[in-house]
Amino acid sequence: MIVIMKAGATPTQLTNVIAQIESDGCQAHVSRGEERTLVGIIGNGRPFDRERIEQMDGVEKTMPVLRPFKRASREFHPEDTSVTVGGITVGGPDVVVMAGPCAVESRERMLEIAHEAKDLGAKMLRGGAYKPRTSPYSFQGLGEEGLEILAEAREQTGLPVVTEIIQPELVPLVTSYADVLQVGARNMQNFALLHAVGKAQCPVLLKRGMMSTMEELLMAAEYILSHGNTQVMLCERGIRTLETYTRNTLDINAVPLLKHLTHLPVVVDPSHGTGKRELVEPVSRAAVAAGADGLIVELHTRPDEALSDGGQSLRPAEFRELMESVSRMAVAVGRNA
Amino acid sequence: MIVIMKAGATPTQLTNVIAQIESDGCQAHVSRGEERTLVGIIGNGRPFDRERIEQMDGVEKTMPVLRPFKRASREFHPEDTSVTVGGITVGGPDVVVMAGPCAVESRERMLEIAHEAKDLGAKMLRGGAYKPRTSPYSFQGLGEEGLEILAEAREQTGLPVVTEIIQPELVPLVTSYADVLQVGARNMQNFALLHAVGKAQCPVLLKRGMMSTMEELLMAAEYILSHGNTQVMLCERGIRTLETYTRNTLDINAVPLLKHLTHLPVVVDPSHGTGKRELVEPVSRAAVAAGADGLIVELHTRPDEALSDGGQSLRPAEFRELMESVSRMAVAVGRNA
Amino acid sequence: MIVIMKAGATPTQLTNVIAQIESDGCQAHVSRGEERTLVGIIGNGRPFDRERIEQMDGVEKTMPVLRPFKRASREFHPEDTSVTVGGITVGGPDVVVMAGPCAVESRERMLEIAHEAKDLGAKMLRGGAYKPRTSPYSFQGLGEEGLEILAEAREQTGLPVVTEIIQPELVPLVTSYADVLQVGARNMQNFALLHAVGKAQCPVLLKRGMMSTMEELLMAAEYILSHGNTQVMLCERGIRTLETYTRNTLDINAVPLLKHLTHLPVVVDPSHGTGKRELVEPVSRAAVAAGADGLIVELHTRPDEALSDGGQSLRPAEFRELMESVSRMAVAVGRNA
Amino acid sequence: MIVIMKAGATPTQLTNVIAQIESDGCQAHVSRGEERTLVGIIGNGRPFDRERIEQMDGVEKTMPVLRPFKRASREFHPEDTSVTVGGITVGGPDVVVMAGPCAVESRERMLEIAHEAKDLGAKMLRGGAYKPRTSPYSFQGLGEEGLEILAEAREQTGLPVVTEIIQPELVPLVTSYADVLQVGARNMQNFALLHAVGKAQCPVLLKRGMMSTMEELLMAAEYILSHGNTQVMLCERGIRTLETYTRNTLDINAVPLLKHLTHLPVVVDPSHGTGKRELVEPVSRAAVAAGADGLIVELHTRPDEALSDGGQSLRPAEFRELMESVSRMAVAVGRNA
Repeated sequence: MIVIMKAGATPTQLTNVIAQIESDGCQAHVSRGEERTLVGIIGNGRPFDRERIEQMDGVEKTMPVLRPFKRASREFHPEDTSVTVGGITVGGPDVVVMAGPCAVESRERMLEIAHEAKDLGAKMLRGGAYKPRTSPYSFQGLGEEGLEILAEAREQTGLPVVTEIIQPELVPLVTSYADVLQVGARNMQNFALLHAVGKAQCPVLLKRGMMSTMEELLMAAEYILSHGNTQVMLCERGIRTLETYTRNTLDINAVPLLKHLTHLPVVVDPSHGTGKRELVEPVSRAAVAAGADGLIVELHTRPDEALSDGGQSLRPAEFRELMESVSRMAVAVGRNA
Repeated sequence: MIVIMKAGATPTQLTNVIAQIESDGCQAHVSRGEERTLVGIIGNGRPFDRERIEQMDGVEKTMPVLRPFKRASREFHPEDTSVTVGGITVGGPDVVVMAGPCAVESRERMLEIAHEAKDLGAKMLRGGAYKPRTSPYSFQGLGEEGLEILAEAREQTGLPVVTEIIQPELVPLVTSYADVLQVGARNMQNFALLHAVGKAQCPVLLKRGMMSTMEELLMAAEYILSHGNTQVMLCERGIRTLETYTRNTLDINAVPLLKHLTHLPVVVDPSHGTGKRELVEPVSRAAVAAGADGLIVELHTRPDEALSDGGQSLRPAEFRELMESVSRMAVAVGRNA
Repeated sequence: MIVIMKAGATPTQLTNVIAQIESDGCQAHVSRGEERTLVGIIGNGRPFDRERIEQMDGVEKTMPVLRPFKRASREFHPEDTSVTVGGITVGGPDVVVMAGPCAVESRERMLEIAHEAKDLGAKMLRGGAYKPRTSPYSFQGLGEEGLEILAEAREQTGLPVVTEIIQPELVPLVTSYADVLQVGARNMQNFALLHAVGKAQCPVLLKRGMMSTMEELLMAAEYILSHGNTQVMLCERGIRTLETYTRNTLDINAVPLLKHLTHLPVVVDPSHGTGKRELVEPVSRAAVAAGADGLIVELHTRPDEALSDGGQSLRPAEFRELMESVSRMAVAVGRNA
Repeated sequence: MIVIMKAGATPTQLTNVIAQIESDGCQAHVSRGEERTLVGIIGNGRPFDRERIEQMDGVEKTMPVLRPFKRASREFHPEDTSVTVGGITVGGPDVVVMAGPCAVESRERMLEIAHEAKDLGAKMLRGGAYKPRTSPYSFQGLGEEGLEILAEAREQTGLPVVTEIIQPELVPLVTSYADVLQVGARNMQNFALLHAVGKAQCPVLLKRGMMSTMEELLMAAEYILSHGNTQVMLCERGIRTLETYTRNTLDINAVPLLKHLTHLPVVVDPSHGTGKRELVEPVSRAAVAAGADGLIVELHTRPDEALSDGGQSLRPAEFRELMESVSRMAVAVGRNA
């Protein structure tokens, strides 16, 4: 880290900064320019608390030299990590498609969708039993009953199940039914939840927060990794921008950038990433072209009756087309579909 | 709500939309323009599920006519709500200043700060025992020990205590020590937490999410209100923008706008709202000038040693000046300080 | 357009609104709900001034039913528009790649790059003679000398030239040398410039503003179209977000969304859209996969010596790889490369 | 500036970076850490081209130590600059209120408003003759006729006139009528215009771009200052955020931050900064409380008939109240009103 002193910093202020650095077990390296004095901090391997220095008198600002994440960093872990669930590997040569409804609405509908997903080539099943909704008056999910339905759908189709976890104390219950715990965008910085999920013996699909930077996403992954769970998949699901014609703006840069910054697999959610059914397929093509390891797509047999997100859910015929497109793209970038 | 049909919507699609509206117990009112057909929905008093319609074939978009919050709305509750804690009323004629460190760091420091806060005129004490931190390697708070220290500080100074709650299952524990539960910005849409807090018999300080709109803040308040807890104070604490010279951008418009939209009291956090010590006082003046009911300010006797947020914490001498400024402003807008 | 009256609007206020609508030659259609009265405006074919109504007493807000752009709209012009420059058609079956340096720096360097571009399969040449720079101390371009060099590069290679226009009065000069006028992101709402360019007999490449919505981009295109110039290509070049690891965030959703909203061709700039050399190729693949009609790419033979944007410019070997990738992608989506 | 080399940078890459720095007439100061090598650049007084280095092989990123603006910086010009126009000083002890319609609509209306402004205590007159409008179909201003009307209004009231300039070649014409050239938010980075205005002998009111950072605003001011015009006033007019209930979000932090970073006077536009009539007065109070040197407010005698921005224009009675509020606030912060 580098400390930039204010133009008028006094010698005493500089001495104090150096003393603070040394008391933290680091070395200070002073460099005097024409207009500013800089202090380089040579660390001791442990993360340094930037704020401690930044608030000292005479300090203008600090600038990090190293990235704040370690376990998630490709620099410290150059080889790709892959996550295998029920025989399906995310982060390997195959582009893995996960599909299903936004929410589990009923046993009948869920099983119907699960069979369609299976028949059309999806490799995992998604569906929410606990739904974080912006209105207290909207459908909040079926809870444990939804988990039971998901488990039945897995039994009938053989597809592993991805479902959202919204509360630390539900981890034991949800892991007893599901194969992958999804941490939703609104919970990406719910640190109590990240902690609980980090203690679980279950793969995690960590969705990027709606306004989060790459660094924040990777710090959230670092939370999970640092608590012992190394089976983390990252999911780009669109960020919030000023655009009003779409619900979110899928950040396509994130795909190759994440592949560069981290060894963790990268999944893309084109359904939330666009919020519009007609954009799901072209944006899925783009995601695979850019190097995504998987897609998580909303599929519904009767979207007009869906209790949430119907407008961005594909119908089976549309999903079939998407699978064909994705397949062509996967081949064009040298992967399997 | 108004439904706008696509330019080429078929009569069957229109019929389906009308049928759906009627099956939800509402009336449909069709209006045919030159280029578009509109359908007005005349409700039955219950909130209408917008997505259900939006996903139907032939529908271009829907537009809400009414705001989605009711209990938080001034329209349905014209008089100001005030929240009284330990004899201190927020939302009345007084501008209430809450002060204290970002985090409870030690018994000695907390008590020292608490006495300063009391002596300099603060009316409530703030301090975090559970800290949501972006890095798993940063100080995470003292937990229950911190709560005990806060309770001791209250005993010694008589100041009610505001502290953050980060997990639903901690509600019984935290309410056994604290006077006000603070829901932090990162948890504004942690619906499991809002639910738990809504069931508690304890006033809540609900901070606006870093990227949240007024409507989302009010919907979060609606969650708490709809679960039975009516003692909710809203807190504007700055939003995230492209600016790099400040940590957040305090949204001053939010103060009069919230006073217009809702009956709940409005508190401003100039410390997080700016992230820079030298901006705290001018922005506090602005907040009071704009009509804030209270301020929540970071105060530290030794900010250079603070474990978090030291750079935005006021020292006692600076806090004294702030109190004088706030007092002059309160008088100038016809309030007490 | 729909007018929503305030909850407490008086009959006189409603009467005034109706009178205003009728005085503008439109019809008002009143609809009284339980909680709000709405007034639908049935237009006379001319765009209606929303603000006029919105500011009237008793009006809560207005909601547009129709999109504000007409000439740019696919609804009013269902067939694709293509723009042909020097025998090269953008918006047809070919994916057209434009390449060249950010700025024309010297005759020697520009000609060297132009020949590389030509040899490696680019179909148009880009290069700035007038550079909008955020610092008055940065290189501002060679001006007319740069235009002369570009004309010479075209003569030698046969590639049509795209160059930026930054000032209305330069239109005659720039069109005397260049084949396509580029309106840069910072000038997307420089209406005096859009007016001037709209009067020119020269194709235009209109770049999306860094924080512009789709609607604003299409309204900027509408300016040009409404002044008589129909040869407009739109260019997605990344938007500004909170991300700090990239310079901009390429909005991939924009590609299929623009193809849906407008008949104009859509070009993508992966160089500015990412700002990082290593992301240019994967994001170019994504752009073509999503349906882009062309790419505009920064190419430099000696990026280490470039006077601007060197860090995002491809070297010839990297550009060759990009051309191969683009070609595979074009074929995979059924186009020519 | 500091250069951070990549983890795996080679000795040759480091040598090249040093050679580049020295060839630019600067000194390189190498510092080897455990994980990264840093190179400090000790400058020669001239601004250094950051991109040149950033694009070199082996370079991870560069970090500026000094701010990129000099003439606008308080560090290099510690005393406040004030701008005096027709006897009125902005940046001195008085809080100066400028008022008038968004656009000059007719001679009669403009004169009526000008007399109201004068009578109610405004010290300058605002009004646009050239209007940048997002739609080509909206009212674009009266042009020179508008300027003539403004000059007549000044003659009758004695109030100096502020009006917008949207095109470089109009500078001579507009300065022949107006007292202050306003550069609008959409033109803050129209560098050709900044250049022209920088050459003019006329005070400038430079509005912050809708998505601009403080640094970008100050770099735009630097353009004007560096071309010789030192009479620059900065204007905070709200930034664009995700909020939908207001048109813009006034950035109150900007006021004390600008006073800290620059010596130039700071004016606030609460009309555009909120876009809602009912918020103008509370936000004006906040602006003065935070230290603004002036306000520019939209005033209209018949806002229901205004051709633009009527919804945010104050009526005379509302403006009178605003003047009283502003006066109380000015006194409370030790200024004159």
